[in-house]
Amino acid sequence: MSSPIRLGIAGLGTVGTGVVKIVRQKTQLLTARAGRPIEIAAVSARTREKDRGVSISGYAWEDDPVALATRDDVDVFVELMGGSDGPAKAATEAAIAAGKHVVTANKAMLALHGHALALAAEEAGVVLRFEAAVAGGIPVVKALTEALAGNEMTRVMGVMNGTCNYILTRMQASNLPYEEVFEEANQLGYLEADPTLDVGGIDAGHKLALLAAIAFGAQVDFGGVALEGIEKITIDDIKQADDMGYRIKLLGVARMTGRGLEQRMSPCLVPKKSPLGQLDGGTNMVVLEGDEVEQIVLRGPGAGMGPTASAVMGDVIDIARGFRVSTFGQPASTLTAASQASTATPVPYYLRMALHDKPGALAKVATVLGDAGVSIDRMRQYRHKDATAPVLIVTHKTAPAALEDALAAMSQLDVLASSPVALRIESV
Amino acid sequence: MSSPIRLGIAGLGTVGTGVVKIVRQKTQLLTARAGRPIEIAAVSARTREKDRGVSISGYAWEDDPVALATRDDVDVFVELMGGSDGPAKAATEAAIAAGKHVVTANKAMLALHGHALALAAEEAGVVLRFEAAVAGGIPVVKALTEALAGNEMTRVMGVMNGTCNYILTRMQASNLPYEEVFEEANQLGYLEADPTLDVGGIDAGHKLALLAAIAFGAQVDFGGVALEGIEKITIDDIKQADDMGYRIKLLGVARMTGRGLEQRMSPCLVPKKSPLGQLDGGTNMVVLEGDEVEQIVLRGPGAGMGPTASAVMGDVIDIARGFRVSTFGQPASTLTAASQASTATPVPYYLRMALHDKPGALAKVATVLGDAGVSIDRMRQYRHKDATAPVLIVTHKTAPAALEDALAAMSQLDVLASSPVALRIESV
Repeated sequence: MSSPIRLGIAGLGTVGTGVVKIVRQKTQLLTARAGRPIEIAAVSARTREKDRGVSISGYAWEDDPVALATRDDVDVFVELMGGSDGPAKAATEAAIAAGKHVVTANKAMLALHGHALALAAEEAGVVLRFEAAVAGGIPVVKALTEALAGNEMTRVMGVMNGTCNYILTRMQASNLPYEEVFEEANQLGYLEADPTLDVGGIDAGHKLALLAAIAFGAQVDFGGVALEGIEKITIDDIKQADDMGYRIKLLGVARMTGRGLEQRMSPCLVPKKSPLGQLDGGTNMVVLEGDEVEQIVLRGPGAGMGPTASAVMGDVIDIARGFRVSTFGQPASTLTAASQASTATPVPYYLRMALHDKPGALAKVATVLGDAGVSIDRMRQYRHKDATAPVLIVTHKTAPAALEDALAAMSQLDVLASSPVALRIESV
Repeated sequence: MSSPIRLGIAGLGTVGTGVVKIVRQKTQLLTARAGRPIEIAAVSARTREKDRGVSISGYAWEDDPVALATRDDVDVFVELMGGSDGPAKAATEAAIAAGKHVVTANKAMLALHGHALALAAEEAGVVLRFEAAVAGGIPVVKALTEALAGNEMTRVMGVMNGTCNYILTRMQASNLPYEEVFEEANQLGYLEADPTLDVGGIDAGHKLALLAAIAFGAQVDFGGVALEGIEKITIDDIKQADDMGYRIKLLGVARMTGRGLEQRMSPCLVPKKSPLGQLDGGTNMVVLEGDEVEQIVLRGPGAGMGPTASAVMGDVIDIARGFRVSTFGQPASTLTAASQASTATPVPYYLRMALHDKPGALAKVATVLGDAGVSIDRMRQYRHKDATAPVLIVTHKTAPAALEDALAAMSQLDVLASSPVALRIESV
């Protein structure tokens, strides 16, 4: 039996407590699988005294996470505090500098500082792993970094914010408007303190940037993610997309194109019979496409004590087993500086608009689209309500510039009752 | 840059050719990711001269796979010949004895000899990996062995034979009987030379036994898999299951129960709105359930050149990166001898029968079920055809013994036009 591997855990919220529980309750299982005992040497959190449902009295205590991260009796620093900067980053840097491996669930820190931290880890000869940072219990970082390493990845997609998917599917099921379901989610405690992190797509955007870095061998570039939230999605959009055979999802899509790395996190339409279209509630899903493997779909819980702690333990066990893999799948020094794609890949678009009840209104819209080079695949006009007629259009593949031209020209027409909504349709 | 890792590839069929192509075409990508060049030192196959769409002239040739496996310039023996015994096994044993790592796609060999081979590999200090043996390109072995290693697994399920799933979904879509779709699949070349391997559930059973060994820390025990094929499934079963809200799948289910390890590969009903129920065509799906992670669903291509070669390369890259993990996730010497569950876990059952057109027929059946302790959840009687009336029953959870009693008692009744069909309903 090899010597024990000793953890220093900073942050004893839901996930930290979950990790402590697993280490305490599964001694034998973990030892058998890791090939050596996994022990907790020391912990750190905001409050020492607090009923966590598990005792931490047997572990050394540090008020300061940096002190924890650099203790002689810590082999792996487990960072579960959160926050992109501040103590989490300071302690992670200190751990790396002190030659400790790091396991973190901190997507914000890695999305913003992942490249620098990966370089530092490499320099120090330690590993920095982050399975729990992306899609909770779904082993997507491992699948991409290791299992699919023989592939040129072609596209990575994901529904990676359970709260947004809850809101969108609840709107669909209950026929309630966005504001009401948002409030409901808030009452249920599903939203971050700053809800923009969820509904603005930031949280999911962090995760997408991390996956894109691995998939395309690029330095993680959260700033390059085109972000659009779900706040503008109406119950009409949801119903009418349904009518055309689609579901609306806050979907992350990353592709390496001839124009550079394209990363988008935005509400998109997907076919309702596809795995993404069928994903209801708070569950996450990631779709990995590569030139050899075609398409792999991974589905599972994106949050919660058990699933996230499971992901942390997967990384810890890898380290205990002696596995040393680069943070983003290849030496950080070889990752290319991200060159952000100048324009988005052409896709079909869904357009929703309300036309004034005037003769020739639809003809004017159709003419404007045609003049801009936007070709119509399907169109539906619904019965008038309030002297305006809802019109839905699904286009053929359209370059974003052509779409923008068409939308600009439409705004000059006198037939639109309000600004049209345009959503990308992602094929799956 | 570290020294190259050198492969000896035995078997140049679809998968072997796919591996050669990846190694030849992705030199730079593989070197970056593996941290060292991946090279092919030597190959072996039944025929040397054959147009494979890729040149093998730059590699040493061995007629004898054992000679290939033991060459001084081979670091990793890649076994892609197939066959549970014979040359594949001899060469794998020789490779291990010679201190070579082994990567194989050979589910039959591992299902029958996996424990002995894992022990030998451990003894020799080499690794034996088999991602490509289970569900093609889906990284399920890695997910289970590594990512979910912090979980007590509770259930592993899978649709892992694309041909069977093709036949069943094609029957559903085309309304054609089993025999006709079987013949169609045969014409399309979807079936193994011995089709019982597919439709009898043997191939999928091999895969289930491998996953069960990892999930439950048991010595792989293919003999303990209760096998039932899809030959008895009629178009009526498919239509009537649909009517009750279900799809029929050749489903593998493994559980560790108080009564021992339960492994079943049999046609089961699953809710048609579940991920398994929605799986059409040749695609595979594996569902992994653990006490922490809840449920992870993995979906992807279960066969084909690219996907299977992708899985082989994942294992090769792991080895090149220096990862050394036990074949079944813990030292083979610590795997428990499988104790086969004496009885199956109680589940709801679907019963289909044809009753003679006699007064009181249904009452007799209901009485027999009640007397045996089988409780009815739902029942439908359809319009008579040919003087018999099709009757469908969905039971509440029923112990197999109670069901057998009921079926035995029914066979004594004078109201059944033929033997009833009983299928398990697996909750997902």
